[in-house]
Amino acid sequence: MARFEMAFETWGELNPKRDNAVLLFCGLSASSHACSHSDDARPGWWESMIGSGFALDTDRSFIICVNHLGGCFGSTGPASLNPATQKPYGPEFPPFLLRDMVHAAHAVVRHLGIERLHAVIGPSLGGMLAFEYGACFPEETARILSISATGRPGPQSISFRYVQRQVIMNDPLWREGWYYAFPDWPVSSMAIARQIGNISYRSRGEWESRFGRARTGVGYSFGPDFQVESYLHHMGNKLANQFDPNSFLFLSKAMDLFSLGYAHPSYQSGVARIQSQTLIIGVTTDMLFPIQEQESIYHALLACGAPAEMISLDTPAGHDAFLVEVDLFTPPIRRFLYA
Amino acid sequence: MARFEMAFETWGELNPKRDNAVLLFCGLSASSHACSHSDDARPGWWESMIGSGFALDTDRSFIICVNHLGGCFGSTGPASLNPATQKPYGPEFPPFLLRDMVHAAHAVVRHLGIERLHAVIGPSLGGMLAFEYGACFPEETARILSISATGRPGPQSISFRYVQRQVIMNDPLWREGWYYAFPDWPVSSMAIARQIGNISYRSRGEWESRFGRARTGVGYSFGPDFQVESYLHHMGNKLANQFDPNSFLFLSKAMDLFSLGYAHPSYQSGVARIQSQTLIIGVTTDMLFPIQEQESIYHALLACGAPAEMISLDTPAGHDAFLVEVDLFTPPIRRFLYA
Repeated sequence: MARFEMAFETWGELNPKRDNAVLLFCGLSASSHACSHSDDARPGWWESMIGSGFALDTDRSFIICVNHLGGCFGSTGPASLNPATQKPYGPEFPPFLLRDMVHAAHAVVRHLGIERLHAVIGPSLGGMLAFEYGACFPEETARILSISATGRPGPQSISFRYVQRQVIMNDPLWREGWYYAFPDWPVSSMAIARQIGNISYRSRGEWESRFGRARTGVGYSFGPDFQVESYLHHMGNKLANQFDPNSFLFLSKAMDLFSLGYAHPSYQSGVARIQSQTLIIGVTTDMLFPIQEQESIYHALLACGAPAEMISLDTPAGHDAFLVEVDLFTPPIRRFLYA
Repeated sequence: MARFEMAFETWGELNPKRDNAVLLFCGLSASSHACSHSDDARPGWWESMIGSGFALDTDRSFIICVNHLGGCFGSTGPASLNPATQKPYGPEFPPFLLRDMVHAAHAVVRHLGIERLHAVIGPSLGGMLAFEYGACFPEETARILSISATGRPGPQSISFRYVQRQVIMNDPLWREGWYYAFPDWPVSSMAIARQIGNISYRSRGEWESRFGRARTGVGYSFGPDFQVESYLHHMGNKLANQFDPNSFLFLSKAMDLFSLGYAHPSYQSGVARIQSQTLIIGVTTDMLFPIQEQESIYHALLACGAPAEMISLDTPAGHDAFLVEVDLFTPPIRRFLYA
């Protein structure tokens, strides 16, 4: 791919010294619209974390959120036109790694005239990208803040994404990835893939107290009958109507392949690239990237002598805690960024 | 359904007093072939647990394993001929509950001239059926042994089965359940549904040590690339080639709807039907029916004054531990059945 486009949004002002920039990476399915702003008043995915006096403080920081390379919210991805064929790239989009996504984001940072970030930060896939950014550009990254992420996903996490991909690829409407010209896309299978994700994003305990065995009133049905099923149905459709299945396949695969040790003699030597002040936040009930994964990268960083600290948050909110537990996340984030 | 057939297999001899019978219920996907015997030399799903001197001791017990009503291994199910239409029942198979499956198994027990079981036993779905059997026939059940099961599944467990069903029903080859007359069945979606199950049957820790991030050598692929993916691929196909998707839908739904409190004023009053000596075995790493579920039914039984005990086994083998941890399961089972 000779050229690619990167879409991003910003909040706050870059200061004259250009040293107050915070690069924010989002999760797999989110976009650069992390927060409302004058050009787009819709609430963003981290609306309650970005603003004056908030965790990411627009009075102090210039915040940049990029859309993922390979995604479907403005940056070049499988749905983009391949100049060589004048058709969408589709399944012929070049396979990419988190390393490539990080270099694409770095181009945005340089484009904005920033030589060194105050911090790179992200949750989930965004937290993996934050690690990789800090590893690729240690001199240009003062701080890394990685939330509910991992230095290399384990087999259970890989297996969730594997079955999600199989669901999409088993849909005849996927058409081996060449569905763009057709009116009917593999939307229903994208929704089911998302539902599988949603199971891994929350925790058993949260669902016990939130849904229990409450019914919808539909009665005997293989479809939504219990309220938890109705919730999944809703969550699946919500994403499926706005997310390109091919982007999901490529991004999900990139997550599986991510390891800080990729193309290095060992995992440890890859981790040793990280020199920045690093804060790792994990959640005790995370099913997708369990707390052991955050502990593992934390200890790997300590073993390299990197200035790392780790916070383990005890909440039933699971992997998605960063979206809902604003009061738990705000104090440690503010302290790490601004103390 | 005016008439139905029940298939079953037996091991050992019914004694003259007819009081040494053990009724064994299997998991969702297994059959009555729990162990090899003279008429069928193939190893069964509990081969190492049934035999002379084994956990289920054929020197002492007459062991009966039934095929599930609604299944696809000999008992009447959706693939059976509907006498009213001379076509398979398909999706018009009557909706059934675990209560119905238990009554069907009870008919087998009575057919064999047994008035009181030495024990009813089962793992997973079989353990839920063991509870329900003991609840429906307290006078005819001396002992209940329920392994890695629950008195009522929680929302996370329901959500796994929900997405499995959606995967099958989203397959155009499912044809709203009327696929029997066609050469191409929804086999690939049945395989994916099974893969989702397989994730919930094992544990993160087991897969970390068993697969880690080992690759197959295929290289970049949305399909099997990591060894854990190859394992899931294999496990999915293995079941999909022998299991009727409609049976999966009906049995899976029956599991969701199961509660010992069904049609009773409260869960507790439904549980209070159980009078038998009850042993509950749970596994600390079970994702599908977590140890909290076994603790919950255990405490519910104690609250009713039922003679219950519970054993929590600490093994990384997860929900499937009963299939692989013969040495852990054999001593408590023998003690409970024969001490």
